[in-house]
Amino acid sequence: MELGVGGSNPPYCTKIMTKDKKSKPSKELPSGFVDRKEKELLVRDLIISNIKEIMIKYGFQYLETPSFEYSDSIGKFLPDKDRPDEGVFSFKDENKWLSLRYDLTAPLARYVAKNYLEIPKPFKRYQLGTVWRNEKPGPGRFREFLQFDADFVGTKSLQADAELCVMISEILEKCGLTKEEYIIKVSSRKITEKLFKKIDISNNEQKLIALRALDKIERLGWKGVKELLGEGRKDKSGDFTKGANLSLSKIEEIEKELNKKSPDTDDLLDVLKIFKDYKFTNFEFDPFIIRGLEYYTGPIFEVSLKFDVKNEKGQAIQFGSIGGGGRYDNLVNNFGNYDAPATGISIGLDRLVYALVQKKKIKLKQSRPVIICIFDKNLMKDYIDLQKILRDAGISTEIYPGENKLKKQMEYANKINSPAVILYGENEKKIEKPTLRNLSSGEEKSITIKELVNEIKKII
Amino acid sequence: MELGVGGSNPPYCTKIMTKDKKSKPSKELPSGFVDRKEKELLVRDLIISNIKEIMIKYGFQYLETPSFEYSDSIGKFLPDKDRPDEGVFSFKDENKWLSLRYDLTAPLARYVAKNYLEIPKPFKRYQLGTVWRNEKPGPGRFREFLQFDADFVGTKSLQADAELCVMISEILEKCGLTKEEYIIKVSSRKITEKLFKKIDISNNEQKLIALRALDKIERLGWKGVKELLGEGRKDKSGDFTKGANLSLSKIEEIEKELNKKSPDTDDLLDVLKIFKDYKFTNFEFDPFIIRGLEYYTGPIFEVSLKFDVKNEKGQAIQFGSIGGGGRYDNLVNNFGNYDAPATGISIGLDRLVYALVQKKKIKLKQSRPVIICIFDKNLMKDYIDLQKILRDAGISTEIYPGENKLKKQMEYANKINSPAVILYGENEKKIEKPTLRNLSSGEEKSITIKELVNEIKKII
Repeated sequence: MELGVGGSNPPYCTKIMTKDKKSKPSKELPSGFVDRKEKELLVRDLIISNIKEIMIKYGFQYLETPSFEYSDSIGKFLPDKDRPDEGVFSFKDENKWLSLRYDLTAPLARYVAKNYLEIPKPFKRYQLGTVWRNEKPGPGRFREFLQFDADFVGTKSLQADAELCVMISEILEKCGLTKEEYIIKVSSRKITEKLFKKIDISNNEQKLIALRALDKIERLGWKGVKELLGEGRKDKSGDFTKGANLSLSKIEEIEKELNKKSPDTDDLLDVLKIFKDYKFTNFEFDPFIIRGLEYYTGPIFEVSLKFDVKNEKGQAIQFGSIGGGGRYDNLVNNFGNYDAPATGISIGLDRLVYALVQKKKIKLKQSRPVIICIFDKNLMKDYIDLQKILRDAGISTEIYPGENKLKKQMEYANKINSPAVILYGENEKKIEKPTLRNLSSGEEKSITIKELVNEIKKII
Repeated sequence: MELGVGGSNPPYCTKIMTKDKKSKPSKELPSGFVDRKEKELLVRDLIISNIKEIMIKYGFQYLETPSFEYSDSIGKFLPDKDRPDEGVFSFKDENKWLSLRYDLTAPLARYVAKNYLEIPKPFKRYQLGTVWRNEKPGPGRFREFLQFDADFVGTKSLQADAELCVMISEILEKCGLTKEEYIIKVSSRKITEKLFKKIDISNNEQKLIALRALDKIERLGWKGVKELLGEGRKDKSGDFTKGANLSLSKIEEIEKELNKKSPDTDDLLDVLKIFKDYKFTNFEFDPFIIRGLEYYTGPIFEVSLKFDVKNEKGQAIQFGSIGGGGRYDNLVNNFGNYDAPATGISIGLDRLVYALVQKKKIKLKQSRPVIICIFDKNLMKDYIDLQKILRDAGISTEIYPGENKLKKQMEYANKINSPAVILYGENEKKIEKPTLRNLSSGEEKSITIKELVNEIKKII
């Protein structure tokens, strides 16, 4: 018998967990999940603070939706329609299914529908939040990640679409990237729409299969895409993916059209004109930018980092996409009849953090505390007073937090990369001069408590 | 047939979701989950930034564990042992169960066990993160909330326990609370241990039932607690809770002991001495502070807000606990034989945010953008240039993001509480003087572009 989930059936049962009383619980993490340490978190904090500053400047409102939604509220927009039965973490709650959000766009659509009468129209909001994907994890492929999304809802103005690209560019440059290190690739769903009309594909499913095929150009190359536009493709494992079943002449027409070097749809021409008004040049037109989501209806964009990073095999590979977005004029209408044409962008912050850490672009003030050694337990009150003087002066400080001998205390100070330790025993107390040991130079100084703050500030 | 979960059975199935093609998905949120808006989020950001500043000052490392853990890694420490089969969101992943963390302490214990050789000893870390409880939601009772935790692992020094209280007090005061508005209540598990020994209760289960009974003093009063210490208690609904089955004389002994006004266990006497060294006075000894968790072994504390707030019925009620903590010397040992005595504190940030918003303690710079109205579509480039001048000067600004007439644009500006709008048409362009309308006074001024920044800064 298998255990059920949620309120109706016990999701978790001590009897099972403690069946073998001697067995220790796992110290490991489930695959696809990681612990994140200080350096990464501080880089992330810096990015987030840059984002928030720019969001205020651009007039976006700060919003947060919860991690769970009713599955049916976000279900119809699942990004990967190839596998409708996977991709999300879902739980049965009494009579309805709940899911952890897999992106921030579907919850926004739900929020807009729920609060349609109250929100300003247009509605500009940004959100920072974790999203979850219940997919097979692989190297660098996680099951939870942090996203930043900014969207305009309730406007058809292409000024909005263009500004999202300008804004992302400003964020990246504020994070220390140069114009040579990133590019915004732009295209439009109208290009493929027009093309499908021209070569007379009207079947929606066929269109979708064709779009998904084109979306795979980077991984499969034109040869593989061609197979998927035709009868289908057998991969290395022998698995066969059904194709769009287009004729060779239609496939050739698609290839010809998508090799055009400049856009000819009205929406993109307008966006490019607005880019010019913004003096924004760090973009390129790339009709092969398709993006997996079915719901796009107009301009689409992808944010790509152009510098090389090393993969697990030590090979230099281009970093590639860290996010993207586009116009989706009909998404909110899934909830009813709303006038809510929209456009938005989404950035994967963990990938951006990783890129910035790799490039060592960000200088962090990663302050490790000065350690006040416990030289003599009877002097604890003096240590607490010293600690207060230093902390009040803005110096990260701690009294050694354990109960070990001095040797262990020094080992601890080195382990946590402390800049300096303070030694203060009966002798030092007599002359009211603590000894300050600089841990990088090894130098020791006997100085008055009054001078201690200035002396430490020279070191840190 | 009921659907299963996780990798083995599809957690989510389009066939079911789209069974009735005409039915709209829900716009509502599952109970126990909420959307959070700008004001609340900005207060939260401010609290978090205060916390981070103090964490650096105190020398704590920043760590983040993932939202999911293997259920067995966190399962043995479930806080509410009355209902071992509830309380967490769990999910079957291939062969093992995963759970969303229900606190940040169990994941810390797992992290310490996993990284025992690498971490500094003692290990001081803090974490900010969402935790989930799959409990029946009620008014003000949510199923996800944000917690802040700070812990010392690998030290028996009571300096650590005392410092946690001092530190929380510093955080609260940095957030604007006065000494009259909060109190740290302290007690020790050693009091009840000593007491149980004295009255000869050695049965672990009986101890646990007694502890849980005492923990309910605030809700049930001494009369209800007494029933639970005895044979048991029937609540209003008629449900019977089994008691600890203690004799009347033992119950009287407990009451006598817990009414003592000052502590007599060594650990608390030490902690109080350290408080004195820190000149920390904003605490009170309260032996009825029990806290639900089984794993505490020494000093325990609870952080309580003393001011009144109004409940749903409009009645003034004391705000009460926003968190607490204590010493837990054996928790990491669940994973094996580790030398990791520990102490920690945990604060519910959503409750603190709520309290601060209620008290209107925090003045926020909630900058809403100045709106550049689209007076004439042909002047879009001028609007973009104007917008750049203002944004570069640090003024939150937006060109009206829609395509509506001026009247709608003004409605929008008022709706988002914009401080001012800029009107710039052909006439204004001729004299190079935009019109600035102050939306709170209604006053209009014709001013040069050069003076615009200064004029707006007077308003916002």
